[in-house]
Amino acid sequence: MIKEEIIRSLTVPTDSKIILLVLDGIGDIPYLNQQTALETAHIPNLDNLAAQSVCGLTDPVSPGITPGSGPAHLSLFGYDPIKYQIGRGVLEALGIGMELTPDDLACRGNFATINEAGLITDRRAGRLATEVNEKICRMMQDKIAEIEGVKVIIAPGKEHRFVVVFRGKGLEEGLTDADPQKVGEKIKFTEPLSSAAEKSARIINKFITLATEVLKESYPANTVLLRGFAKHPGLPLMSELFKLNPAAIATYPMYKGLAKLVGMKVLPCGETIEDEFEVLQKNYLHYDFFYLHIKKTDSYGEDGNFEEKVKIVEEVDKFIPEILNLDPDVLVVTGDHSTPASLKGHSWHPNPFMLKSKYIRIDEVKKFTENECVKGGLGRFPATDALSLMLANALKMKKFGA
Amino acid sequence: MIKEEIIRSLTVPTDSKIILLVLDGIGDIPYLNQQTALETAHIPNLDNLAAQSVCGLTDPVSPGITPGSGPAHLSLFGYDPIKYQIGRGVLEALGIGMELTPDDLACRGNFATINEAGLITDRRAGRLATEVNEKICRMMQDKIAEIEGVKVIIAPGKEHRFVVVFRGKGLEEGLTDADPQKVGEKIKFTEPLSSAAEKSARIINKFITLATEVLKESYPANTVLLRGFAKHPGLPLMSELFKLNPAAIATYPMYKGLAKLVGMKVLPCGETIEDEFEVLQKNYLHYDFFYLHIKKTDSYGEDGNFEEKVKIVEEVDKFIPEILNLDPDVLVVTGDHSTPASLKGHSWHPNPFMLKSKYIRIDEVKKFTENECVKGGLGRFPATDALSLMLANALKMKKFGA
Repeated sequence: MIKEEIIRSLTVPTDSKIILLVLDGIGDIPYLNQQTALETAHIPNLDNLAAQSVCGLTDPVSPGITPGSGPAHLSLFGYDPIKYQIGRGVLEALGIGMELTPDDLACRGNFATINEAGLITDRRAGRLATEVNEKICRMMQDKIAEIEGVKVIIAPGKEHRFVVVFRGKGLEEGLTDADPQKVGEKIKFTEPLSSAAEKSARIINKFITLATEVLKESYPANTVLLRGFAKHPGLPLMSELFKLNPAAIATYPMYKGLAKLVGMKVLPCGETIEDEFEVLQKNYLHYDFFYLHIKKTDSYGEDGNFEEKVKIVEEVDKFIPEILNLDPDVLVVTGDHSTPASLKGHSWHPNPFMLKSKYIRIDEVKKFTENECVKGGLGRFPATDALSLMLANALKMKKFGA
Repeated sequence: MIKEEIIRSLTVPTDSKIILLVLDGIGDIPYLNQQTALETAHIPNLDNLAAQSVCGLTDPVSPGITPGSGPAHLSLFGYDPIKYQIGRGVLEALGIGMELTPDDLACRGNFATINEAGLITDRRAGRLATEVNEKICRMMQDKIAEIEGVKVIIAPGKEHRFVVVFRGKGLEEGLTDADPQKVGEKIKFTEPLSSAAEKSARIINKFITLATEVLKESYPANTVLLRGFAKHPGLPLMSELFKLNPAAIATYPMYKGLAKLVGMKVLPCGETIEDEFEVLQKNYLHYDFFYLHIKKTDSYGEDGNFEEKVKIVEEVDKFIPEILNLDPDVLVVTGDHSTPASLKGHSWHPNPFMLKSKYIRIDEVKKFTENECVKGGLGRFPATDALSLMLANALKMKKFGA
């Protein structure tokens, strides 16, 4: 009996409410000014909350491992990110807002250029304009709606990127990338890694041939390279595992998609942080678990824009009293992973974490920063345990063993 | 090779001595007075010991999971409580002081009431008096000594509760509860979950029929409901795994039973804390590992009696110099799980832990409290690692790998 099964066997539905506020990529390392974003920001409400919380640091996957958004979020949602790996194609599809079903096999596509000899001369077709991409995708979709009864759904991304979803019975993953990864070679067809994926391979390869046909006159985008073939992961739902009735409030497609994968109801929401907190207030009575996602701390971290990252934290800080007015049984504020502006990308550093409930040992941490959370009562722990802690503090878990 | 096998391969017998003092349920959260029991208690000796120890916090099973006494103790004894789950029937049997052998299948019983139509009208037979229970159990035992060569052992518990142990070859667990769990239904027979348990099911169901026969005139206790069928878990012994010659000093049957399951010698002992420390002194030369269990910190926690919980800690404090006079190579003081008086039950909060030996890095912790142990040199760690730490500090473990 693994830990997931034990937790599933212990959880009970109750009326208590949990709010999980995720500041994406909030964790930081000292920037030029020698402070992290949290240390630099003026965040009296978050600091005050830290003083009433039990704090700690979480590892999304394992110390030293830099997670992508998929595994980092799965951990926070209580899923082992090593057991449940979400394929690249699925994440790309979610990232551009596509809906996926358990019958779907998704992949990431590049438009690319081949010369008359059929050799690749540019793997990104000159990074064509997004509008051109959209036009070509429509054209392909018009000509290729179905292959062997499998529905083909094509959606444009930015520049040369697009996503293909193959929807039908009997599609399995376990396929090599249809992408030689270098110029000067011929386009490549996918190969099944087991007989279960033979049907998928046949359909994908027909698609590549058909698409190259259709694109003949669309130089420089005259062929496609496909990779990251992945099925909808079919994760157990939070309602099954944790007996929760969960809702997600997010502005970016990727996070809405991840929330849907674990069975959260994605609440319609505007684009701003204010919109998100308004949606929380309006829907507070109808769910018992709220995942509220703030994207821009991560985006500015990725851009290397330390000052704007600080401003986003300060903006979020203003809404903390509104959350506290709702008087949730459990409130957690944390990040999914770190995105230091000085690294311009995700990093492996553990996330500051604070939890407020009636049943905690309030610790001595008075500020919501990485180095204060080190001293917190929760210590350093795997992010996969965060959800159990929330459930425990909401009195949603029975005792294990007699 | 799992960790247990590695530890088994590294342990060596030595003359060094380990004392593990467990204050059951000692971990707390702030009570009305805003302090935990350890923070409130006047415990100069425990605080002084903390100042000479390395401290930390342990999770019995996993953060957020509230353990029963079984898994909480197994962890402290160095056993993975998820791998080794002790069934309810076995714990009930241990809890009333029954001896179990590897051939035993145990279950928890309720006396219940059925009406003339054979429908259950009371699942607890009006919570009959314990003396009546004892009388009825004797009557059943007289009439039902054996079924198909399997010995039937019946022992009364409190009120409507009793335990049945079926002792014989070929009994397997994996059986549904013989208890419909609600009134208005007929009594239920057990069903085997696999063919291996068919013999067990047949014998149990014969017992239910025979018992209902015998109880015909014993209204309101005129039938039995049985559940939690479980076999003696057959745990590897501490002598095999850890090369220890361990002894247990405890006053409650459950803990003596758990100690026996892992192969400890249970030393005869009176009822008081003073008795327990006296037994420790008298037997100190004869064993190399002592588990000394203080029950009442937990009992008062369960009762919500904060003041008495504090007093028990203060009483234990007075015996610390006696332990130190024995000069054990390793002394650990900790809890098995938390039992906050304000929750009136076990909880998920990690346990304060301190270890004294010649080979530690003494940390800055000067008081034995939950929030001081947070700052300890051991950090937060799984309770299953506690035994390895004790063995290491007693120089009872070889190097792993060359």
